[in-house]
Amino acid sequence: MPTPIAELQSLILGEIPMARAMDLTLREYDGAQLTIAAPLVPNINDKGCAFGGSLVSLMTLAGWGVVVLKLKDLGRDCDVYVQDSTVRYLAPVWSDIVAIAQLAEGETWDDFAQSLAQRGRARATVSCRVPLDEGRDACTMQARFVAIAR
Amino acid sequence: MPTPIAELQSLILGEIPMARAMDLTLREYDGAQLTIAAPLVPNINDKGCAFGGSLVSLMTLAGWGVVVLKLKDLGRDCDVYVQDSTVRYLAPVWSDIVAIAQLAEGETWDDFAQSLAQRGRARATVSCRVPLDEGRDACTMQARFVAIAR
Repeated sequence: MPTPIAELQSLILGEIPMARAMDLTLREYDGAQLTIAAPLVPNINDKGCAFGGSLVSLMTLAGWGVVVLKLKDLGRDCDVYVQDSTVRYLAPVWSDIVAIAQLAEGETWDDFAQSLAQRGRARATVSCRVPLDEGRDACTMQARFVAIAR
Repeated sequence: MPTPIAELQSLILGEIPMARAMDLTLREYDGAQLTIAAPLVPNINDKGCAFGGSLVSLMTLAGWGVVVLKLKDLGRDCDVYVQDSTVRYLAPVWSDIVAIAQLAEGETWDDFAQSLAQRGRARATVSCRVPLDEGRDACTMQARFVAIAR
């Protein structure tokens, strides 16, 4: 049986042509963080570094994915939508891209699960970042997602 | 001789593989607004509507493009970078995508040109939106760009 992360990768690559064009891979999910990767070459811009659209797409998919995988952990069947996001572009990316998403500080999945049980919908704020090899972040995103029970 | 908008489209499609994958077209630039379009099919998601990553990529490229074209009008040779953006996703897009970018309210290109002349760099805040056929917006973006003289 495929793992939840392998199943999610199949869904994303099967249903989203732009995810295929980005050649992304869901690399790891440890119950809290989801890591997505993509090679630089298909995601390059006119300056030879990573295209801003690829960076924000990858972070948005990582944020959406961490909510989807947590819902799987919780045994809940929901649609998940992004509502808004704030992105900061801090430094160019000259290598393959990695995006890491996790629940934002100050929020808990327990509150999320409780809201979902009580109201059939719940919001989660997710923090995403694209780290550089030397430790600092190339870009960061804070995004809100809503999950609605099917 | 190619028009500035045709030249910019050639640059974007020639140098950014993801722009080719999105199949985008620079449709119109009237000195204030830049309109970019992309068909739905290559930009679809698992729900059958437009992928959020495509929407934000298209809005970011429209914002970047309007600054690049204004610099061309001003006869200035600059690199243009996105610094940050805030995106709101308001409604799904079930048709081909159109993104329109223009300078944000309260800013003027005169101030931008003056800052560039005095300091060799200038910031512009750009408003982008993806309108729906019925008049309201599917998503909006406010983004800051910096232009640095080469």
